[in-house]
Amino acid sequence: MTENKENQPIYSRLAVIGAGLIGSSLARAARETGAVSYVSICDLDPDVRAEAARLDLGDVRETVEAACRDADLVVLAVPVGAIGAAARACAPVMKSGAVLSDVGSVKGEMAQEMMQAADTRIHVIPGHPIAGTEKSGPAAGFATLFKGRWCILTPLEEQGEGYDAEVARLKSFWERLGSTVELMDTKRHDLVLSITSHLPHLIAYNIVATAEDMEQVTQGEVVKFSAGGFRDFTRIAASDPTMWRDIFMHNKEAVLETLGRFSEDLAVLQRAIRWSDGDALHDLFTRARSIRRSVIEAGQDVDVPDFGRVTKPGDDQD
Amino acid sequence: MTENKENQPIYSRLAVIGAGLIGSSLARAARETGAVSYVSICDLDPDVRAEAARLDLGDVRETVEAACRDADLVVLAVPVGAIGAAARACAPVMKSGAVLSDVGSVKGEMAQEMMQAADTRIHVIPGHPIAGTEKSGPAAGFATLFKGRWCILTPLEEQGEGYDAEVARLKSFWERLGSTVELMDTKRHDLVLSITSHLPHLIAYNIVATAEDMEQVTQGEVVKFSAGGFRDFTRIAASDPTMWRDIFMHNKEAVLETLGRFSEDLAVLQRAIRWSDGDALHDLFTRARSIRRSVIEAGQDVDVPDFGRVTKPGDDQD
Repeated sequence: MTENKENQPIYSRLAVIGAGLIGSSLARAARETGAVSYVSICDLDPDVRAEAARLDLGDVRETVEAACRDADLVVLAVPVGAIGAAARACAPVMKSGAVLSDVGSVKGEMAQEMMQAADTRIHVIPGHPIAGTEKSGPAAGFATLFKGRWCILTPLEEQGEGYDAEVARLKSFWERLGSTVELMDTKRHDLVLSITSHLPHLIAYNIVATAEDMEQVTQGEVVKFSAGGFRDFTRIAASDPTMWRDIFMHNKEAVLETLGRFSEDLAVLQRAIRWSDGDALHDLFTRARSIRRSVIEAGQDVDVPDFGRVTKPGDDQD
Repeated sequence: MTENKENQPIYSRLAVIGAGLIGSSLARAARETGAVSYVSICDLDPDVRAEAARLDLGDVRETVEAACRDADLVVLAVPVGAIGAAARACAPVMKSGAVLSDVGSVKGEMAQEMMQAADTRIHVIPGHPIAGTEKSGPAAGFATLFKGRWCILTPLEEQGEGYDAEVARLKSFWERLGSTVELMDTKRHDLVLSITSHLPHLIAYNIVATAEDMEQVTQGEVVKFSAGGFRDFTRIAASDPTMWRDIFMHNKEAVLETLGRFSEDLAVLQRAIRWSDGDALHDLFTRARSIRRSVIEAGQDVDVPDFGRVTKPGDDQD
């Protein structure tokens, strides 16, 4: 294998389907790192296509079929609820030996849909870069989004000859973009992400809604005094509603299981408050503190107060 | 009143009791802005006192009594569970006409305790700057912590002559430090903060604990893939355990009420996921998104993706 050599493209032609935050970042990153020689990009929304053209994200095509016909790698960067339809549009026109992948936050159901859409001429390798921001749309993307982040690939089982080599090639593609790649089975992916990503978003959406309902009572005070902690949750809750609706609809089992554990734990905490069990509260808060250190040590967050925002005077309202 | 004039000290002598994040920031800010001429500071912990001296936060005193004997303004910057004891130590030795305030995140019970500790010679004006980071200790403080933030004062009712003027003076003190001051009654304060600060922290502690319990199942993956949203919660959950234990023990009523609303809302969301009610999910997520805009517009958070952390290459793990 020589694909991993510096400066040499890993794929000749990349097609990105969906030009939102992730798709547009992928198009930029693949070109800027030289991971591919050519990028075609398509989005069902004409306004998004126009913006993708204006931003020069690649060769913008009117149809999914036109975008992926000659591609060596097709990446579906659409909400998980649209992955099945996108795969069914792409797979029949893709050339033999090409790779079909995605960036969806749910892998079990999505891998099934992609597999059913594809015949044995092409290689289906589901993927999920653990990267993103609360912003949406083509202009929100940037080439370094995947740098220093993890990317999970969930290869299918019992695939034909050459499949493992294609997995290795897709791995080196993501590594070129700056990611560290982990292989995992789809079920495990969906469980891990239910706690590291899906539940946090659900909770954030929920607390913001609770606060909004109390807003009538407190006349704007919720927003005014949000620096007490609440504002952190509003960031996550600003993420794309369609994307998140789809995630919860398609990772139902793992999310409900994880949510069940969360609610049990919350009931215990509620009881400790009601009965003034200070030791129980202190023990739990101390345990929680230690996991922050692990996150910092693993390089998964910055170790500056308030994510660095209060110490940057220009960002403040003064 | 002339206290509000630029460059002129608002109080001659400030005593800060407790040299943690808030106390040390207050000492720095009061001196750097010229809001006071002199700062004495005390902490019950000898190690913290030694560090306060090393950091030159003010005249470090061995005892609370020595720190506040000559002060015009005494601010208790201790965990809310320690406010009563601190007030009882300070009040008897304070000079007539001096002001006793605090920075506690709970005001109802704390105002009662301060009032009971003080006689009519001194003015009790409870306060709460809505500012802080997840860091603790004297070295974590900085002079601009209160800049661009709100500070709530909860003046007592039925006070003697001169009280209103002292409230106005304390207001101008916080304004000199860069804060905007809001007056509020204690009950309303405790309800507003239960949703903007106390519940977010409780939820963050809880989800981190839930994840930690799942950690055995997922072998470090929770930490590894925390950039999917979870890491935001770990920051808040890194806050001081003693401080937060005390807050939940002393704002029990409002926290349990707000938590009850949160749990009801979460049950509705859980049901929508179980029954695949995509429209309900999408509607709620869209509503939540709009409150983020209000927070940004109110100047209570930065409007950069991921709080600015991913776009600062130096902070990343590359």
